Amino acid sequence: MESETMIAIVKERPAPGLTLKRVPVPRELGPHDVLVKVKRASICGTDVHIYNWDAWSQERIRPPQIDGHEFTGEVVSIGGDVSSVKVGDSVVSETHIPCQKCLQCRTGKMHICKNMQILGVHRDGVFAEYVRVPEVVLWKVDPSIPLEYASIMEPFGNAIHTALVTDLTGKNVLITGAGPIGVMAVAVAKVSGAAQVIVSEIKEFRKELARKMGADVIIDPTKEDLTKKVKAMTEDNGADVLLEMSGNTTAFKQGLDSLTNGAVVSLLGVFPGELSFDINGLFTFKGLTMYGITGRKMFETWQVATQLLKNKRIDLSPVVTHVLPAEKFEEGFDVMIRGVSGKVILEF
Amino acid sequence: MESETMIAIVKERPAPGLTLKRVPVPRELGPHDVLVKVKRASICGTDVHIYNWDAWSQERIRPPQIDGHEFTGEVVSIGGDVSSVKVGDSVVSETHIPCQKCLQCRTGKMHICKNMQILGVHRDGVFAEYVRVPEVVLWKVDPSIPLEYASIMEPFGNAIHTALVTDLTGKNVLITGAGPIGVMAVAVAKVSGAAQVIVSEIKEFRKELARKMGADVIIDPTKEDLTKKVKAMTEDNGADVLLEMSGNTTAFKQGLDSLTNGAVVSLLGVFPGELSFDINGLFTFKGLTMYGITGRKMFETWQVATQLLKNKRIDLSPVVTHVLPAEKFEEGFDVMIRGVSGKVILEF
Amino acid sequence: MESETMIAIVKERPAPGLTLKRVPVPRELGPHDVLVKVKRASICGTDVHIYNWDAWSQERIRPPQIDGHEFTGEVVSIGGDVSSVKVGDSVVSETHIPCQKCLQCRTGKMHICKNMQILGVHRDGVFAEYVRVPEVVLWKVDPSIPLEYASIMEPFGNAIHTALVTDLTGKNVLITGAGPIGVMAVAVAKVSGAAQVIVSEIKEFRKELARKMGADVIIDPTKEDLTKKVKAMTEDNGADVLLEMSGNTTAFKQGLDSLTNGAVVSLLGVFPGELSFDINGLFTFKGLTMYGITGRKMFETWQVATQLLKNKRIDLSPVVTHVLPAEKFEEGFDVMIRGVSGKVILEF
Amino acid sequence: MESETMIAIVKERPAPGLTLKRVPVPRELGPHDVLVKVKRASICGTDVHIYNWDAWSQERIRPPQIDGHEFTGEVVSIGGDVSSVKVGDSVVSETHIPCQKCLQCRTGKMHICKNMQILGVHRDGVFAEYVRVPEVVLWKVDPSIPLEYASIMEPFGNAIHTALVTDLTGKNVLITGAGPIGVMAVAVAKVSGAAQVIVSEIKEFRKELARKMGADVIIDPTKEDLTKKVKAMTEDNGADVLLEMSGNTTAFKQGLDSLTNGAVVSLLGVFPGELSFDINGLFTFKGLTMYGITGRKMFETWQVATQLLKNKRIDLSPVVTHVLPAEKFEEGFDVMIRGVSGKVILEF
Repeated sequence: MESETMIAIVKERPAPGLTLKRVPVPRELGPHDVLVKVKRASICGTDVHIYNWDAWSQERIRPPQIDGHEFTGEVVSIGGDVSSVKVGDSVVSETHIPCQKCLQCRTGKMHICKNMQILGVHRDGVFAEYVRVPEVVLWKVDPSIPLEYASIMEPFGNAIHTALVTDLTGKNVLITGAGPIGVMAVAVAKVSGAAQVIVSEIKEFRKELARKMGADVIIDPTKEDLTKKVKAMTEDNGADVLLEMSGNTTAFKQGLDSLTNGAVVSLLGVFPGELSFDINGLFTFKGLTMYGITGRKMFETWQVATQLLKNKRIDLSPVVTHVLPAEKFEEGFDVMIRGVSGKVILEF
Repeated sequence: MESETMIAIVKERPAPGLTLKRVPVPRELGPHDVLVKVKRASICGTDVHIYNWDAWSQERIRPPQIDGHEFTGEVVSIGGDVSSVKVGDSVVSETHIPCQKCLQCRTGKMHICKNMQILGVHRDGVFAEYVRVPEVVLWKVDPSIPLEYASIMEPFGNAIHTALVTDLTGKNVLITGAGPIGVMAVAVAKVSGAAQVIVSEIKEFRKELARKMGADVIIDPTKEDLTKKVKAMTEDNGADVLLEMSGNTTAFKQGLDSLTNGAVVSLLGVFPGELSFDINGLFTFKGLTMYGITGRKMFETWQVATQLLKNKRIDLSPVVTHVLPAEKFEEGFDVMIRGVSGKVILEF
Repeated sequence: MESETMIAIVKERPAPGLTLKRVPVPRELGPHDVLVKVKRASICGTDVHIYNWDAWSQERIRPPQIDGHEFTGEVVSIGGDVSSVKVGDSVVSETHIPCQKCLQCRTGKMHICKNMQILGVHRDGVFAEYVRVPEVVLWKVDPSIPLEYASIMEPFGNAIHTALVTDLTGKNVLITGAGPIGVMAVAVAKVSGAAQVIVSEIKEFRKELARKMGADVIIDPTKEDLTKKVKAMTEDNGADVLLEMSGNTTAFKQGLDSLTNGAVVSLLGVFPGELSFDINGLFTFKGLTMYGITGRKMFETWQVATQLLKNKRIDLSPVVTHVLPAEKFEEGFDVMIRGVSGKVILEF
Repeated sequence: MESETMIAIVKERPAPGLTLKRVPVPRELGPHDVLVKVKRASICGTDVHIYNWDAWSQERIRPPQIDGHEFTGEVVSIGGDVSSVKVGDSVVSETHIPCQKCLQCRTGKMHICKNMQILGVHRDGVFAEYVRVPEVVLWKVDPSIPLEYASIMEPFGNAIHTALVTDLTGKNVLITGAGPIGVMAVAVAKVSGAAQVIVSEIKEFRKELARKMGADVIIDPTKEDLTKKVKAMTEDNGADVLLEMSGNTTAFKQGLDSLTNGAVVSLLGVFPGELSFDINGLFTFKGLTMYGITGRKMFETWQVATQLLKNKRIDLSPVVTHVLPAEKFEEGFDVMIRGVSGKVILEF
């Protein structure tokens, strides 16, 4: 790299807002570190929390720290023992950094490592021209995949991980919550053979995104009886699968109530505080199975994402609503906060 | 059968208590009905609810009705189209009567039939000398299995169904609640290769039963920190599997907290009212999987139960604490209510 | 029904050929029997064996017997205890009649009943205006599904059962053999999210059908090196899944050789005589898993087939190459024998 | 370590035999290398192949090379970047060295790495006082596990990996071949809740070992009809699971023939040359599932092995028939070759 400093979007002080400024390029590489030139990065809901400096952020973030975790880029320098990537490789990255030593890491479950570190949360993030990451999180990406789509493979991976807990061919799939991950899950369910993909969502912008991503029916539960409608569409059986993407308690309960006995629930949504529900009637007596989803399988999920994008089985273009130069990051956070965006991508 | 009437234990009026009296032997057999001479029947917690005439019972039971659902007996008469059993066969019985027509029934999930009827709840039960049941619920039982054990194969099946949602060999298994099904689950987990079976229970009688059924460690969560103890026994990882048998909210939350990331929860316990818990921290972020368990797989579970008992892989004798003539049923309900029994078996 | 006799296509004598003739309509219905007015029936490869009177047929068929097993029709009369269908219902039918009593039948595996009877093999078949079948094999079919497609739901079910042994989203799927079931499997794999569907086939007519049903690449293994080509298409890894539909030993071995370590094999093809292969190198050391496929899951597979067709997720029109009045059945067998057809459908 | 040389058992020339001699202690450690003081090592059938210098060995081994791969020991020195073990740790070791870069390695399937190297085959082995291995293969072992058992955790892991492809509780398990891994599989099946463990074996010494390890019935297929006997023991159904450990074609075919429809086959045995069998009748039409087994899951299998041994759920003492000082290795190979041993352990 030619310069000693780089542009970065930084949480400078323990207060709302982020600052674009020049900071030193990371120089010291441990034996398994990799320096990546960031090409595109995208804004996650977590970044909005950090921007807003809410309670969650105040507990976790230690300013000054570079924000951001979703990105794609090119390897520019590698540590002495790095062997899985080389200079010039196009890469995407897991944002969850596993310890590689705990029982989970050593038994094929790195994505639920008990000593997990997160990019842009526990250490400097990727909203910068360069980022230093450990080799273990990098995944080589096919250069034929457009940079915009590569930069959102991390949340796309959330959608894949959530949707693929059970085989979907011929199944009726209900998705509660049509945020960016929810609408990508619509596309994943659709490409995976779902008989019908039914979405529950109340915001107009998101309904429209769900429609563009392939939802068969979009139901506004404030205007229609979700359970009744789902049963009407499924020979009075109810849906076979619930992908919970809203983190909304009412949506979760309506979702469970709309399921057929023996159905599967995949739970990605994060709820505000404790969740209270009739677990006997809505879960146990129905013989449901529920999967708690966090992160992406390393790297089974990334392989599926790669194959779907490389072979153009899924079109992510509707979800990429904004592509902005890094300098205009404030505009990106603004549309995110106002709920009038899909994924917002920053160019570095 | 020689007599026109038979002894039965009947809920006569919508009020607490049950009555031993003579009632007519069921005579009319539909084409798929079977008349069974009851030999042994056992008292379930549900029967105690009915005895006590609690809110749950008042909503469901329509007196006068014969109580009871767990039993074994011998076929004495069959309807015109019955082909799966013949007169003289020793049988046990599912207590959940499937409709055989709904989507669940036609796709291998009869145990979660959406039109389920329950013996002794929606129709006359088995606390009688004879009972009429549809052919579909009967399972031929090996005559080498003692009658006492055959009569409790239904709750033993609950224990099996709950325990076998995941392979247990080499796993550390935590069981919350050591009622009769809980302690049978101890034996199932143990025979299935669990590395350690850890039980959480507060009542002395039940702790002792758990010990006799093979529990490695029994923890009283009012006296010790369950999570800390479980972690100490598992190289600080936590248990791999939770079998929730208590229906107690605190036990459920402590149980989840004692699990390692990626663990499995099998949920049989029925909770009083809504369940409220931190689903994010205790379930989703840990990447857990949870199974809602009701009934027994028809008849995969019964086949496992049969093989385990026939080959003497499990000894149920500690759980059979009382065998009484039917006439002394009040004594049986008394020990059940006072919590000083395992399974109580009535002889007919 | 108005007439006492009906048209039927009958194997009259133990010799090649079939005869169109009038025979009595089945009159006697057992308590669980159903009389169905056949609307469309389709010719299976098995029917061609029977037509040709080959060794397989000579061992199994006892003339005179009506041929055929794939069909759709309408219920016109029911036995006294039939409760799952009623007169006027549109139905399709399993062709494998389970005993409902063996261990398999009672544990959710009716499709591998150990006392299986087959329509048109062990008893009169469906190439007739009316057919008597036991209630247990019937599946109500949505009237919105065109009759031609309903009549081939049985072989379509074979394709579904074979393809769905593992989740296909993002997987590279190799199908060896593009007969009618093979090309329907192409469509199933495609709709289920396969990254690429690669077909190995040597006959031109079948290559063309595979292309129309959605195959991404069709390889003629007599002209190209299958394994080399598959590896070239999969970053040198090999395919993730093999659906073996050819019953050809060379194809099977090439197929295994084209798989990545840890891949899945689903085996429907029937081989002529013993199969000899290097199981160490081609199977064990690669850590493969192989599923033997027969029939269709009853009725999980039929539910998937129904949902896919009802919701128009799969278009079966390319595979229906011939629709003929029953009287022209010889023409249908002729195109089947010459290998210039997909499915041939007879109108009754 | 105090000395510059060490004792080792070496294949010196491309000819039968092995030589005990002094060789230099490995000195140079790469950043992820670990030097282990070998305490116990055990002789595998593979070592006998190498000793005998058969065709398999001639193709793979490049003398001079130290032999052996099964062992336990203590870490005495670590490379600069090693972080998962430290000096003084007790360790056991995978013998399959994964590349950590291929698709398999990066998606939780290291045990079927496509660039696998094997200790004692592709590089110096462990029949020596010290061995240098890469960090990735080491697994810390609980010091409470006796050294003799720790040294055979690798073949014990084969038994576990083979046996645990399906849940065994209440299942009838047939094991063909009672070599050391076969008899350890007997114990694994037994501890995992198998209803009956039936062994097919022709050699007296091995029959006796199987009996000591818990087999319920041992059948000599040269004296009795295996299939008939198995069916007699299983209500005429056949076994639910076949663990093929013999690599004998006749045993494999008899084993398949003894299975019930829908059974599971786990295949570890290595066959001499091509395997020929009626795959239609013995596999496909029965709806079987077959798993090809190689190595041990890294490290799920090792975790199960550890938990079983640490908690004394399995007693491996009957299988450890010989413990010899390294100097007497010829005696160990002799009993192995004559088939009058279980595991032979060498002390270093």
